[in-house]
Amino acid sequence: MKGGELMGSIDYSRFWTVPERPVPTWQEEVFQYDFGGANPGPDVMPIEELAEAARAVIHEEKEIIARYPPTYGPVRTREIILHKMAAHRGMTWPTITEVLTTNGSAQGITLCLETLTNPGDTIITDRFFYQGAVRAFIARELRIVTIDRDEDGMRMDLLEQKLDELKSEGVTPKFIYTIPSPQNPDGSIMPPDRRAKMLALAQEYDTLILEDDCYVDQMLDVDEMPPAIASLDGAQERVIYIATFSKILSPGVRVAWVAGDERLIERMAAYKQDVGNDYLSGLIVAKFMEDHMDARISHLNDRMRHKRNTMIAALGENFGPLVSMTVPKAGMFVWAEFPQGTDMQALEPITQERGVRYLGGHQFSPTGEGSQRARLNYSFPTPQEIQDGIGLLANVMREEGSLPD
Amino acid sequence: MKGGELMGSIDYSRFWTVPERPVPTWQEEVFQYDFGGANPGPDVMPIEELAEAARAVIHEEKEIIARYPPTYGPVRTREIILHKMAAHRGMTWPTITEVLTTNGSAQGITLCLETLTNPGDTIITDRFFYQGAVRAFIARELRIVTIDRDEDGMRMDLLEQKLDELKSEGVTPKFIYTIPSPQNPDGSIMPPDRRAKMLALAQEYDTLILEDDCYVDQMLDVDEMPPAIASLDGAQERVIYIATFSKILSPGVRVAWVAGDERLIERMAAYKQDVGNDYLSGLIVAKFMEDHMDARISHLNDRMRHKRNTMIAALGENFGPLVSMTVPKAGMFVWAEFPQGTDMQALEPITQERGVRYLGGHQFSPTGEGSQRARLNYSFPTPQEIQDGIGLLANVMREEGSLPD
Repeated sequence: MKGGELMGSIDYSRFWTVPERPVPTWQEEVFQYDFGGANPGPDVMPIEELAEAARAVIHEEKEIIARYPPTYGPVRTREIILHKMAAHRGMTWPTITEVLTTNGSAQGITLCLETLTNPGDTIITDRFFYQGAVRAFIARELRIVTIDRDEDGMRMDLLEQKLDELKSEGVTPKFIYTIPSPQNPDGSIMPPDRRAKMLALAQEYDTLILEDDCYVDQMLDVDEMPPAIASLDGAQERVIYIATFSKILSPGVRVAWVAGDERLIERMAAYKQDVGNDYLSGLIVAKFMEDHMDARISHLNDRMRHKRNTMIAALGENFGPLVSMTVPKAGMFVWAEFPQGTDMQALEPITQERGVRYLGGHQFSPTGEGSQRARLNYSFPTPQEIQDGIGLLANVMREEGSLPD
Repeated sequence: MKGGELMGSIDYSRFWTVPERPVPTWQEEVFQYDFGGANPGPDVMPIEELAEAARAVIHEEKEIIARYPPTYGPVRTREIILHKMAAHRGMTWPTITEVLTTNGSAQGITLCLETLTNPGDTIITDRFFYQGAVRAFIARELRIVTIDRDEDGMRMDLLEQKLDELKSEGVTPKFIYTIPSPQNPDGSIMPPDRRAKMLALAQEYDTLILEDDCYVDQMLDVDEMPPAIASLDGAQERVIYIATFSKILSPGVRVAWVAGDERLIERMAAYKQDVGNDYLSGLIVAKFMEDHMDARISHLNDRMRHKRNTMIAALGENFGPLVSMTVPKAGMFVWAEFPQGTDMQALEPITQERGVRYLGGHQFSPTGEGSQRARLNYSFPTPQEIQDGIGLLANVMREEGSLPD
């Protein structure tokens, strides 16, 4: 017999210091047609190479693997991160103490919020952006000021106007949050002149830039990304740079990082609530990336280009003019827009029942607008799943009266 | 040229929302004679078995390893945790949704504090206890009420008296924090009658118990630990149970957990700041523990018994009557007391310079008392390092005038 049954149930309400929140349990559910995530799928996992990296690095690092993890992350992991930022992003300034590994990029964002913002502080963002950041900014009770976009991303004229307006109110935003390379969810790539302008505005108005670079490796029709904002002259003190290995390996391996001025990184490191991230997986990732990073990125993008093309074709076949979208040159998503009145938010649970998962556009907006949009990921499912799943999505939407027959 | 040099350095002071705190960088330092940690050392790491577990589980779980980690932790990891709690601790009530994996037990403690306490709340603890919990409770600005101990742990008569006193002030403590099996740092094992009494008091005074069971596997001269408080009748709703695999594998592999009433666990899961803990290392630990847990514990304790005996002998040889201690029957530490006036806090940096690390007793007290004490770990160093390091410690203390020549 359980104690609770004997004693009667305790009322815990006097204990709670934080409001009830839903647990994101969807992560345990497996959908047959999963267009919701943001990661390479099981069909492109480098199982042999990863298993060999794990086996090898445990032997190589046997003298240190018995220890507590360094707060900043394993030195070997930070070294491959420095190499990646220099080789891929033109960032030559971070030193080993200007990089902090984090448990996914989500922990990096949270650490920035905890060390840099109080509830009520103002930050500037895109109108639609990464749903995890939307949730984190709302949970922190920030004042989220959004700036409209065009096909090249956030409009700098509107940003300048808004910064000016805020200044006249006596408000200095804590930071501008941006995902320029390419944007999540819309896939646009911010051109170099806008990057320079954003940095100049951050300097002029004395604010910081939080540059989320999680999708930079997914280059499908571009040979090279514009350099990171963090790599521009004068950026070192102004830009906090966040990136991850999740998108080229797996988000189950939670090795991400934040780079920034030593003072910023030190403050964040001191407020990591968990002593340190996993040493073992940090070392496995380091070993894997030392041996396979560029080949892995190139292989993934070849496969992903095919998956993207499959999805674009399937959307065209099944929705025709009822869907509008830009074919993404980079990243993992189609940011689809359905006819006015379509409620992709209401449809989410219905399609999930049928095995199709996507993320409704409302999740990417701090005000919850965007219900006629959906973010559709093509990197996780197989090409066959993309074809079948998009077909099923269209059928369910027709059955539900969301699309004309 | 760095931007910072050109532009002049930004004053970040207007950004900070949390006070400056030291980063625990000691974790990156390697000491020749390390008596500071709380983990098995490199000499007893099961490198072959761990490497094989990693290789094998990556193949076995290739269909799910590409996914985001479940918020509660991998199902396979939680299953071996349920098995361990039932087999070793007599805990039959936790189900798969009453267990949450955490990034080390430190994250479990932090999640309890964040969901259950506000600054200023009262909690009850031992006079000396786990230094990480001391730091976390102080950082949360709790009112920490300590209860004196005897050789069997916290005194229940004093606990009852204090609860009564607090009640008359209108104060209900949020929880009683206890490490009964055995205590850290003093190694005492709380007898069954005190466990039952503590639970009865928690019920009577309507508070919770936070039972930290991180050292339960280190049984040197005992065949069986008393059952966990969490296993007693009526405990299910009253006790939050924290434990870890760090002490039988490595703290670099950060797989720990918290078990409790489903409502408590759900609240904590929703406030994990990092989506989920590392999936890969969670699975590697599950595989390793499925195949090796009991053999590993038994092998470790055989080696550790020898290391403990070596340390007790070395302390006797080098300090004689100038050190007093109880020979621990369980756990990883000697809780040594030096003559009155010895300042082990002041000596810490001096001995570290000479390659000897221990933790001064003050770190285990919320008021910073206990400077004439030190916690000396014997599980991490080799027997030779124990002999040499304790000799060196005595020499340094004599040189510094802390001990008579």
